[in-house]
Amino acid sequence: MRTGGVLNVLGKLLLLLSGFLLTPIPFSYYYNDGMVTVFLLSSILGVLFGGGLVCSFVPEEDLGYRDGFAVVVFSWLGLALLGALPFYFSGAMDSFVDCVFESMSGFTTTGSTILTRVEILPESVLFWRALTHWLGGMGIIVLTLAILPLLGIGGMQLFQAEMPGPTKDRLAPRIQDTARILWSVYVLFTVTEVLLLILGGVSFFDAVCHSFATLATGGFSTHTSSVGFFNSVYVESIVIFFMFVAGVNFSLHYQGLRGRLSSYWQNEEFRFYVHLTAFAIVIIVIFNLIYGTYASFGEALRTGFFQVTSILTTTGFGTADFDQWPPVCKILLVSLMFVGGCAGSTGGGIKHVRLLLFFKYARLQLRNLVHPQAVGAIKLGKVKVPREVLISILGFFGLYIAFFFLATLVITALGVDIVTGATAVVATLNNIGPGLNLVGPAQNYGHLPAFAKVVLTFCMLAGRLELYTVAVLLTPDYWAMARKPVLRWKQAAKQSTPK
Amino acid sequence: MRTGGVLNVLGKLLLLLSGFLLTPIPFSYYYNDGMVTVFLLSSILGVLFGGGLVCSFVPEEDLGYRDGFAVVVFSWLGLALLGALPFYFSGAMDSFVDCVFESMSGFTTTGSTILTRVEILPESVLFWRALTHWLGGMGIIVLTLAILPLLGIGGMQLFQAEMPGPTKDRLAPRIQDTARILWSVYVLFTVTEVLLLILGGVSFFDAVCHSFATLATGGFSTHTSSVGFFNSVYVESIVIFFMFVAGVNFSLHYQGLRGRLSSYWQNEEFRFYVHLTAFAIVIIVIFNLIYGTYASFGEALRTGFFQVTSILTTTGFGTADFDQWPPVCKILLVSLMFVGGCAGSTGGGIKHVRLLLFFKYARLQLRNLVHPQAVGAIKLGKVKVPREVLISILGFFGLYIAFFFLATLVITALGVDIVTGATAVVATLNNIGPGLNLVGPAQNYGHLPAFAKVVLTFCMLAGRLELYTVAVLLTPDYWAMARKPVLRWKQAAKQSTPK
Repeated sequence: MRTGGVLNVLGKLLLLLSGFLLTPIPFSYYYNDGMVTVFLLSSILGVLFGGGLVCSFVPEEDLGYRDGFAVVVFSWLGLALLGALPFYFSGAMDSFVDCVFESMSGFTTTGSTILTRVEILPESVLFWRALTHWLGGMGIIVLTLAILPLLGIGGMQLFQAEMPGPTKDRLAPRIQDTARILWSVYVLFTVTEVLLLILGGVSFFDAVCHSFATLATGGFSTHTSSVGFFNSVYVESIVIFFMFVAGVNFSLHYQGLRGRLSSYWQNEEFRFYVHLTAFAIVIIVIFNLIYGTYASFGEALRTGFFQVTSILTTTGFGTADFDQWPPVCKILLVSLMFVGGCAGSTGGGIKHVRLLLFFKYARLQLRNLVHPQAVGAIKLGKVKVPREVLISILGFFGLYIAFFFLATLVITALGVDIVTGATAVVATLNNIGPGLNLVGPAQNYGHLPAFAKVVLTFCMLAGRLELYTVAVLLTPDYWAMARKPVLRWKQAAKQSTPK
Repeated sequence: MRTGGVLNVLGKLLLLLSGFLLTPIPFSYYYNDGMVTVFLLSSILGVLFGGGLVCSFVPEEDLGYRDGFAVVVFSWLGLALLGALPFYFSGAMDSFVDCVFESMSGFTTTGSTILTRVEILPESVLFWRALTHWLGGMGIIVLTLAILPLLGIGGMQLFQAEMPGPTKDRLAPRIQDTARILWSVYVLFTVTEVLLLILGGVSFFDAVCHSFATLATGGFSTHTSSVGFFNSVYVESIVIFFMFVAGVNFSLHYQGLRGRLSSYWQNEEFRFYVHLTAFAIVIIVIFNLIYGTYASFGEALRTGFFQVTSILTTTGFGTADFDQWPPVCKILLVSLMFVGGCAGSTGGGIKHVRLLLFFKYARLQLRNLVHPQAVGAIKLGKVKVPREVLISILGFFGLYIAFFFLATLVITALGVDIVTGATAVVATLNNIGPGLNLVGPAQNYGHLPAFAKVVLTFCMLAGRLELYTVAVLLTPDYWAMARKPVLRWKQAAKQSTPK
């Protein structure tokens, strides 16, 4: 591994974040919340540390293929640590573990909080909290659509062909081009949501913070009662629409914005996403009415629509305490937590495409049993799914089971009850936010033991980086290879191309 | 499909079961429990119905490959229905749904009961209840080691080569030979356990009933407090040993009994099974001691050993109410419920081999990420896992998720709480017996709504027949093909052979 090159990239990212650390200062002045020094101090520390790295290590023109894993994991870790400083200096949280939990929850667009009352935070800190989501979301889009396909992770090779942007031989510029295009889509949607929310009577501050959290499918709100605070059908409709949008593959949006609206419905994963959303809403509305959770059809539809979109896209905003819903609705919501968004969206979870492939293989196997002479192949859209992807997905699932099982075991070993422990892991590993019982929508993660918070922080990171990126770094093999000569990006890209 | 041929086979099986329906009569005489007419009547009805089928439909020399699915599913269904008659006529159960639930629980070697107090049943009915387990276990061994590999279900093709017995071209005799060899192993173990239990002071009746339930990994006991009733370390040790034995691939036992003891440890699945059992016992003993569930190490080890073996092998016998254990132990036990026994054992669940392959693929993918130029192949023992098996396993998992999700949704929709509903499905789909909360070890399934019992009965059947056998019959394709000319067994066997 080219350690120097990796640390140089990390240093640059920290410098960039130090710049963003200054953006809450105008809010601090405006609301006069006395946090100017907090952000200045955090930014200075970031500049010192980031600058130190950049000065100490020379950049590498051609970072090795294997370095990609280290860059990605250490970037997220570094950003979360630096981003935790304002929480720590503001004195609003009890321990540094809590601050890192909150910051990681932000950058991984999870939205789990340790705060009992969100309003105790100064406005500028609330803005910073929302901004961590938005920056994390930016990172995710580039990660899943430009970097992971090259690394060949968990079936994401499938999307290599779908990447927008000019295809040049050199990969670093390619990533930059892809990023620029997708980010402009992301910014466009964010600005639109801010304007629409302001039109609905939401304050500029709340509109910005909620738009950041929506497009990133994060879920941090500036109010303890989340989006429920506004109690407005208009606001909820806007948020539902943009949560849904954020759960879609961003390269589809790129196509859509270029006028090719048909590409949405042509995309198999998108159709599955629409159908699953509709199915879940229907079931939840029916059973909330049968069990009398809501008196009127309108109210059941409104909360059902909001909650399903919020959970399925892994946003985690709330307008209702779904822990009070009938068991069947809770089971459905918890199941949806595993699904997550589409690949290439800012949503977390297993992703629709992997689940879709699972069912396709089940159907293929059924067909093969009925017609043993038939030759089976699986297609996604018009692309035949190659064997490498099959192995990636099986492996992803093995890893997912291992992470889920071990994390739940550790959390419950600390004395946490099984529903709280299991759903806390589900909610963090899939980057959602709230779970059930003691980490339910009306609760928070603050009361958990410190070590449980550390494990859940790790779950957020692992889940966000599609498990493999983190798992690779945990293999001794990786570090053994790190000392050998490295492959160049160019070669690596050739090799990870599906045959 | 050769409907006539299938119904002819079913008729013969019903006639066979009618014979077995007479075996409880000596017990009825001995205990003078007045059930002689109950069993006579059940047997006569079986003879009438089975005989009717045999007389009405001519046997088919060469049943088609596709007919295999129908034979398997309708056999289990037919046996469960006929086997429910003694429960119904005895008047010990409230409804026919309850009787079928109990009977299906027997034949699928699940062990879930609707009885609050087992002792209310007359002795001869208790014997019948245990016998359903034993006969079901016989069926499973032949199904998984002789029939499913031919049908190519869920990765079971891997074991085709391991089948003992002469390999002739014609398949019907081959199945018969395999069955004869494996059954002699099964009978030998059963007789040994009966003798060892009697040596420990257990009555002949209890020894027989518990041995039937142990070797079948069933779990029905003649006492409400299950094996805990005997309160004897010796008895528990014997039962632990034979539960563990029943969870092993029976073709390994066949090798072992022929003197090749080394074949056990050479088998990768067996090693995984031993390691997982040991790991689970260590964790459970430690945490039961830390949380003070048991005062002494000896007691913690004794219950931990018993409960882990009972759950992992999907037997479901109890010596302790593990619903009262600390959360981490409950999570571990529920996780083990998914694993189940080894393939080719009488245990249910996902099976160790499939889980092992999952982890192997995860490792392969990790290795490929670190060494992108390496070519990866997965081996199980010395056999390379073919692509067909890969697809089968992915498909199996997709189907497993679908069954689990839909069944849990339906059960909770009836108003059952989430822990009870989810673990009831886990416990029946994996053929274990007890779940948690209202279906915990100290509880039973009697209080569930009738429709929930029907769904759980279906789960037992689907889980026992490795999902695919049942799922195939639910496809319209199967019935469309049923009207076309059929493949012969011989051809089918050739085609399902891994290339």
